[in-house]
Amino acid sequence: MNKTFLLNNVYVEESASVVGPLEGAGPLGDLFDVVIPDIIYGESSFEKAERKMLLESLSLCLKKTNYKPEDIDLVLAGDLLNQLISANFAARELPIAFAGIFGACSAFALSVALGSLLIEGGHFERVIAGACSHHETAERTFRFPTELGVQRAPTAHWTMSGAGTVVLGKQGPVAVKEVTIGRVVDYGIKDASNLGAAMAPAAFDTLNLHLTNLGKRPEDYDLIATGDLGSIGQICLKHLLGDASLSSGNFTDCGLLVYSTAQDIHAGASGCAASACVFASYLYPLLTKGLLKKVLLIATGALFGQTTAQQKDSIPAVAHAVAFEKVG
Amino acid sequence: MNKTFLLNNVYVEESASVVGPLEGAGPLGDLFDVVIPDIIYGESSFEKAERKMLLESLSLCLKKTNYKPEDIDLVLAGDLLNQLISANFAARELPIAFAGIFGACSAFALSVALGSLLIEGGHFERVIAGACSHHETAERTFRFPTELGVQRAPTAHWTMSGAGTVVLGKQGPVAVKEVTIGRVVDYGIKDASNLGAAMAPAAFDTLNLHLTNLGKRPEDYDLIATGDLGSIGQICLKHLLGDASLSSGNFTDCGLLVYSTAQDIHAGASGCAASACVFASYLYPLLTKGLLKKVLLIATGALFGQTTAQQKDSIPAVAHAVAFEKVG
Repeated sequence: MNKTFLLNNVYVEESASVVGPLEGAGPLGDLFDVVIPDIIYGESSFEKAERKMLLESLSLCLKKTNYKPEDIDLVLAGDLLNQLISANFAARELPIAFAGIFGACSAFALSVALGSLLIEGGHFERVIAGACSHHETAERTFRFPTELGVQRAPTAHWTMSGAGTVVLGKQGPVAVKEVTIGRVVDYGIKDASNLGAAMAPAAFDTLNLHLTNLGKRPEDYDLIATGDLGSIGQICLKHLLGDASLSSGNFTDCGLLVYSTAQDIHAGASGCAASACVFASYLYPLLTKGLLKKVLLIATGALFGQTTAQQKDSIPAVAHAVAFEKVG
Repeated sequence: MNKTFLLNNVYVEESASVVGPLEGAGPLGDLFDVVIPDIIYGESSFEKAERKMLLESLSLCLKKTNYKPEDIDLVLAGDLLNQLISANFAARELPIAFAGIFGACSAFALSVALGSLLIEGGHFERVIAGACSHHETAERTFRFPTELGVQRAPTAHWTMSGAGTVVLGKQGPVAVKEVTIGRVVDYGIKDASNLGAAMAPAAFDTLNLHLTNLGKRPEDYDLIATGDLGSIGQICLKHLLGDASLSSGNFTDCGLLVYSTAQDIHAGASGCAASACVFASYLYPLLTKGLLKKVLLIATGALFGQTTAQQKDSIPAVAHAVAFEKVG
């Protein structure tokens, strides 16, 4: 059975986020570090705009902490695109050791989990972990180019444009305390426009493992933030949790925090950026200010691609749990 | 500058490999655990055949060691396909924590590097690391479907069909002693049929960092195995190494070991499987038998995709170095 690791020596030193204009107009708009003026951000393609956001968020982490690239032992980053081109090309601009990770929308939690475990192990001093996504690049990678004007399903998420990054190190205002790396779960959902339903079983599995391993209950955390189940996935998760003690906690979902109802984006935000940016610019400040003491982030990812959809495969999913705690 | 980490508590317990028929007919053919009878391996698509090879290699690792899934703390695996579908779908069949990594053809070294560092850190008992690729899936992902019959360039590699995996733990006949995670390097090569030239600068950069950090010389290793530079990339690497002391070691390249000249595959093997399978079934047995004492594996990856090629981007590359040593 998957282990849950307890950490005593890892902290989030700083965070940064860069988002698109639609996200900037949402309820969290004022909290993000940078809201780019338009979705192509002065580049010749959406893909180049996406990697530019990630590079800017990584650079902001260095700027805010006054670290130089040589102070960072590793960049761990992921995105949604074929061959991880956003993370790879952003990393090209930094003279820092780089490991690309793929976990679809769970990428942020996976990069924080691995980075934290590497620091706890004693060999790494400081790691930057992060993830990014972009609405236009994701739509043409997974579904249809937005230029086609295909009507979106009511269950569809809106892939968020943005990048979120954190500096992990050996001191800071927020500690990384617990990590559970999830296993891949597949309940047979095949609809690429209903990823919340595909990912909810993974969130359930990892939450269940995490709490069971630690003998904890949901209410031991001030907040459990899944990401990004959206409105449909959250209903599925509640159904899976049942009336049992598991459902008693204070739950939110990163996918439901980014846009207002008036923005009419259907089931909620998705994309690697959702949990990354919501953590970097909303949950992390709430922790540093002491407004939340203990937060469990469970980021979920749908591990499919256009090829597997065309070949009639169902959609496997994974979720990784990371618990953060205000220091002092 | 990138660090090189020294490890004292990590070993390769066992290895496994599964390859395609062309690889089975090559010079190392008798060494692989399984040679599949045909390239589709009883599946309905090449993609499903690829993931089947990876799952079989992962399962062989369990079978050879008599470990059960619950004895393994983590599977770290990667492949070349969009959204890492081979690794994701193979992991779906195993109830083990899973982290997908993307490093193109450097995936095996990256997964071994991260897995080893996690074990050395003390939290992980046992990790399976591995990678896979498939000629037909890679060609249609990166260049042209083979059914088109496009003539291959003389500088082109042949993406190897296969999967290679290792069990990393706290005891075993071969120790993992040194790890350098590389940074992304780009010398401006744009030809997707000349990946050796694109990757050679990364191999040079990581080798240089590794030796400089440790104050070592190439001849301190019995063998330095790059992978997979192929014939063109190896010439480029020798040019970069120059007449200096760096070029004095005993070099080989995983991409040059898989096929015979008579098989006419041009510049050599490539794909995540090349370094994975060559290590699992050739280098690892040479180490366990004591025929080699110290081997430095430097696996290289070209971090591009069809989208970046279409958008006229050059090809960034990365290389990761892992040093293995016979115990006793």
